[in-house]
Amino acid sequence: MALDTSQQAAITSGSDMWHTEAVESAGLPAVIVTDGPHGVRMQAEGDDLLAGVPATCFPPAVASASTWDPELLHRMGEALGDECRAQDVAVLLGPGVNLKRSPLGGRNFEYFSEDPILTGRLATEWVRGLQSKGVGASLKHFAVNSQETDRMRISADIDERTLREVYLRAFHKVVTRAQPWTVMCAYNKINGVYASEHHWLLTDVLRGEWGFEGLVVSDWGAVVDRVKAIAAGLDLTMPGPDLAGDQALVAAVSSGALDPALLATSAERVRRMIAKTGDRPAGTYDADAHHALAREIAGRAIVLLKNDGDLLPLTPGTEKVAVLGEFAWTPRYQGGGSSQITPTRLDDALTAIRATGAEVSFAAGYTVEGDSDEALLAEAAAVAREADVAIVFAGSVHETEGADRESIDLPAVQIALIERVAAANPKTVVVLSNGAVLATKPWDEKVPALVEGWLLGQAGGSAVADVLFGRVNPSGRLAETIPVKLADHPSYLDFPGEHGHVRYGEGLHVGYRGFDARGTAVAYPFGFGLSYTTFGYGAARATASPAGVEVRVPVTNTGSWDGREVVQVYVSRPGSAVRRAPRELKAFASVPITAGDTTEVTVTVEREDLAYWDTRLGRWIVEDGEYTIEVGASSRDIRATVTVHVAGDPARVPLTAESSIGEWFADPRGAEVLTAAFAAGSADGPMSAMVETPEMLMMLGSLPLSRMSAFPGSPIDAGDLDKLVEAAN
Amino acid sequence: MALDTSQQAAITSGSDMWHTEAVESAGLPAVIVTDGPHGVRMQAEGDDLLAGVPATCFPPAVASASTWDPELLHRMGEALGDECRAQDVAVLLGPGVNLKRSPLGGRNFEYFSEDPILTGRLATEWVRGLQSKGVGASLKHFAVNSQETDRMRISADIDERTLREVYLRAFHKVVTRAQPWTVMCAYNKINGVYASEHHWLLTDVLRGEWGFEGLVVSDWGAVVDRVKAIAAGLDLTMPGPDLAGDQALVAAVSSGALDPALLATSAERVRRMIAKTGDRPAGTYDADAHHALAREIAGRAIVLLKNDGDLLPLTPGTEKVAVLGEFAWTPRYQGGGSSQITPTRLDDALTAIRATGAEVSFAAGYTVEGDSDEALLAEAAAVAREADVAIVFAGSVHETEGADRESIDLPAVQIALIERVAAANPKTVVVLSNGAVLATKPWDEKVPALVEGWLLGQAGGSAVADVLFGRVNPSGRLAETIPVKLADHPSYLDFPGEHGHVRYGEGLHVGYRGFDARGTAVAYPFGFGLSYTTFGYGAARATASPAGVEVRVPVTNTGSWDGREVVQVYVSRPGSAVRRAPRELKAFASVPITAGDTTEVTVTVEREDLAYWDTRLGRWIVEDGEYTIEVGASSRDIRATVTVHVAGDPARVPLTAESSIGEWFADPRGAEVLTAAFAAGSADGPMSAMVETPEMLMMLGSLPLSRMSAFPGSPIDAGDLDKLVEAAN
Repeated sequence: MALDTSQQAAITSGSDMWHTEAVESAGLPAVIVTDGPHGVRMQAEGDDLLAGVPATCFPPAVASASTWDPELLHRMGEALGDECRAQDVAVLLGPGVNLKRSPLGGRNFEYFSEDPILTGRLATEWVRGLQSKGVGASLKHFAVNSQETDRMRISADIDERTLREVYLRAFHKVVTRAQPWTVMCAYNKINGVYASEHHWLLTDVLRGEWGFEGLVVSDWGAVVDRVKAIAAGLDLTMPGPDLAGDQALVAAVSSGALDPALLATSAERVRRMIAKTGDRPAGTYDADAHHALAREIAGRAIVLLKNDGDLLPLTPGTEKVAVLGEFAWTPRYQGGGSSQITPTRLDDALTAIRATGAEVSFAAGYTVEGDSDEALLAEAAAVAREADVAIVFAGSVHETEGADRESIDLPAVQIALIERVAAANPKTVVVLSNGAVLATKPWDEKVPALVEGWLLGQAGGSAVADVLFGRVNPSGRLAETIPVKLADHPSYLDFPGEHGHVRYGEGLHVGYRGFDARGTAVAYPFGFGLSYTTFGYGAARATASPAGVEVRVPVTNTGSWDGREVVQVYVSRPGSAVRRAPRELKAFASVPITAGDTTEVTVTVEREDLAYWDTRLGRWIVEDGEYTIEVGASSRDIRATVTVHVAGDPARVPLTAESSIGEWFADPRGAEVLTAAFAAGSADGPMSAMVETPEMLMMLGSLPLSRMSAFPGSPIDAGDLDKLVEAAN
Repeated sequence: MALDTSQQAAITSGSDMWHTEAVESAGLPAVIVTDGPHGVRMQAEGDDLLAGVPATCFPPAVASASTWDPELLHRMGEALGDECRAQDVAVLLGPGVNLKRSPLGGRNFEYFSEDPILTGRLATEWVRGLQSKGVGASLKHFAVNSQETDRMRISADIDERTLREVYLRAFHKVVTRAQPWTVMCAYNKINGVYASEHHWLLTDVLRGEWGFEGLVVSDWGAVVDRVKAIAAGLDLTMPGPDLAGDQALVAAVSSGALDPALLATSAERVRRMIAKTGDRPAGTYDADAHHALAREIAGRAIVLLKNDGDLLPLTPGTEKVAVLGEFAWTPRYQGGGSSQITPTRLDDALTAIRATGAEVSFAAGYTVEGDSDEALLAEAAAVAREADVAIVFAGSVHETEGADRESIDLPAVQIALIERVAAANPKTVVVLSNGAVLATKPWDEKVPALVEGWLLGQAGGSAVADVLFGRVNPSGRLAETIPVKLADHPSYLDFPGEHGHVRYGEGLHVGYRGFDARGTAVAYPFGFGLSYTTFGYGAARATASPAGVEVRVPVTNTGSWDGREVVQVYVSRPGSAVRRAPRELKAFASVPITAGDTTEVTVTVEREDLAYWDTRLGRWIVEDGEYTIEVGASSRDIRATVTVHVAGDPARVPLTAESSIGEWFADPRGAEVLTAAFAAGSADGPMSAMVETPEMLMMLGSLPLSRMSAFPGSPIDAGDLDKLVEAAN
């Protein structure tokens, strides 16, 4: 049954905080859309907004991204799908694929990486896993929502290459490969226009260029004007009800201010989304199995940053272990805000370490509020002194949606704890819990081992013990650079902006791209992570095809532990006609390799990922020429390099009267035409002298052809321009 | 006699390359406008564009700026005025006050500094000096013309604070203090609009805000469309004739497309400019005296960067001196392009050093083309080995208008020469000749003394000898930072742009502002320069007044040479509500102090220089509060610090429905109004829970008031907004 205009208006906003509008006459039920992305956060009936019914708290994206393993994300998506089905959720609000522009970003723990390809590949599998269960994803926050400060108004002021090549690239990947049921528009503005009213973004790019087939839902409260939103391509406004907005839509249709087809199309998209959930049977899930999966992912997410003298792994049962730090048994395992899960269970590291059979002593070192004093520090040092090995749990005190951080430093009391413990026991391991990058310099130089534990979800405590005691051989890799200091970060000068605008001043040079471009030293580079084994790389080969570049490299596990290597392929284009980062991640693979074995690793760089966005031509261009393929164990640990020729896209820029003399002469046809015109033109006067001296020719090179005629003695008349342009093209 | 429309059109473009259009019936002669800015470059009759009649080649701005002495610039302006009078020049095309955004800028040698206050103060006196002789200046290139690459089309994409606070600030200073007869519009676009068509720039800002009374002339060939140019506020298009443009103006007036008052006004401005030159008698000048002045300025411009063990000054007549390097007798003393002067005389350093009575040996080391070989290097080393002291002349090979540089490195053959000579003689002095910053690391660590000689004009050779032998005690200070490497430079990631756009990505953080903001090490900091004597600073005092802040500091010449200290005052505003550089130069003084004497130095920081541009309010705001005043011998050698309270400007931003909840609560009246509204509003539902938890309040803080009503249970209805806004303001 077709919906009338007022019904169409009604179903393009929600009926309450978490439901779509039902239209009983049309057989459309209200369906549930609820928060993700690392668990199913269903608001408990009658409870406040941030309480939820118990659900598995999987590792937040900061951790799951460190696995560099799309297959794991796929399994997480499937598990989330099962939990959604158990709660009758139609759409789970995730994944969050905004880039980590700054380590200060308050919501970084919900996002994957500073790199768009890594983000896109991981999020694609998360969506595929989720949607394989008949539950819709909501790819968010579209777009350029990389900060919390003034997030509902701030304009991300960004140039088109940066927007296309960096900030939209992950969205593009997920949309074209996984067709999420929904895309969620961001709160912020992009270049002055609200994402919720951004026709270019929501319609021209998302649907026109990318072929998105689903619906666009607003972030909660992101819509300022329902009519403008529908006109831009936003289909569903949440939350609701929004009677005033519904009426405004009806009025706009009847006044002719809004094309009725646009409203009808949006309503139809909502209807189709609801219809997809129509015949799903209710589901169930195995909480223990999901907890085990959460533990597996967490174990794979942990990044071993430092392990001098192979202090790790510890041997279960043979060592006296001092555990220091309140976080060892009051775990930091998720961030605050809409993603906050009431977990089904919660593991703490202290209990998990005790469970290995180790003789464990504990001192809190600091309170759950983050305070410390000399007595707590002295106690911790004393406990550490008596043990064979000391493990300090430290980390950020709080990260939440809604607020960016002001610093990337560990709290001073925790640094004091680390230093006191390290002074008391040279065999000190630091385990960090944090949702975004923390500075590790200079205190990490005082400890032999450093474990980056991120926020690991409800099973994180067990996963930490798995890694510390070698049940899991760490294979996590940094999905974000750890800088020496915040001021080194590419985003530093322009975060979080002011007065409604944030300039994306570093442009393309986000994260490691910027550190590499300036040759800035970092604490731990993008892609870095140690293992209990070692890997050797053979020579790489690269083969270009119309699909891209296939890269093969033999990798040998040269140590005595089975393990996983994350093989990373970075590409550069030396001599590119456009500014590019020194290297960009284009492909990767997480590969299990048995001790002593060699595996031939094959990864494909997709051709589209070689392209830059040409602002003159308004399209993607793969440059013709030699590309450098670097295969590495991190962005700063390149093990094999090979070059490959890639045939380029046609990219001739038509000559115009505003093209410069230099551009005319650089173009074979243009040069011919202009040479003839110069020969036929005025042969004396200052201009002919000008074109005869090399210095003046250099000055003339940048002169637009049209401007030449302004000079006395020009060989070109203004009246000749049209003919010349026609002849040249 | 009033001009008719076609006469008005005619005199708003030139009659040829260097003359305005005469209107005999109106008694208007053609007057000469010709290139500066460090000499009078009159094209010789019938000669090519870059040849000129002999004139004094004063030190280019790269050098004169290093004097940090406005009084010297005033005297240079007077001398240039005399030379203009001798050539019947009406307007000399200078000064160039574009900021040195990047050390690669091809025309940096014509510009003063990376700092707008230093630039503005120096250029103001140049203009005053010139115009005191009845000759007009042309303040150029207005605006944001800080590169040569694609200079005639490129759009400088820049945010308004950066534009106002950095790139326009020097122009503002000169316009408001010296009223140059003319301002020259730049070739480039600013945010997509040609400077020649930029109404906001040429009319709203230049005339409306700054009160400019003169005329705006185009850079040569900068006008694309005469009608648009006149409409924007550009008065005189050069060169000419431009009959097609004249006709287009007449047609636009008669069709109504152009307000006839605009054309009449521009024509009147041209007429007034011509009239100013009407009754000037022809002048003469004393070429010897001007040469002496050029030598004085050059001597003051030289910056002594390094002088380990007080190797300098040399004692005349007592040492065997080896002079190495072709530049010692084929001096690099000016750059290429429109500013290139045919000098009246030309001193070389080799001759000047010989003239001191020293026993001098010489080896070229490299050819005038910049080549070298083992024989030349070996000869130089051998000559150096036999001497008491070796002086290597090195520098950039070429700098010119029309092309940016690609590197800041010395040519490899010159580095080889320096290293060979330094190995042969530990008492090696390097003298650099260069129009823009050269990297000095790591080779400068191998020599005890380094003299930055810039491009010093026709008397530079003598001036170098003056400094080397102590006839002049060096007092030059760096007007631009010398970085360790180019990649450290704030502009590095975004210079020179591509495809018609250059992003001013570093924003406000130009030059030392950016190095300081990130804490980046530099080779030699902004403001740095050694002396043969030493200076001690006492405690600084600062007194605020409505005019600004008066800063006093006693400075003592603690060495045994009479000398000059350049006292520099940097200001910061800790806790500023807007992003600011860690320190900004706001005042300075070049002060002669006799050995052993103490001088109380008083400088005034002008109140307007404390202001930032508030993009919300659209005006300059001096923030209320404590300012830190740092008095230093360089930007990284702060000798005295004092804080001062400055009363701020009224700066309340009116509350609107789009103001955030946080902004409402931060405003006393807003908080009162909103608290009352919340109390009266809905007391249950999710929103009331939200405002009760601190975490949700943090998330709500950035919620625009208008958006609150979108949430179920909001205490505010959309219909209340207007009343609340009215009550709050």
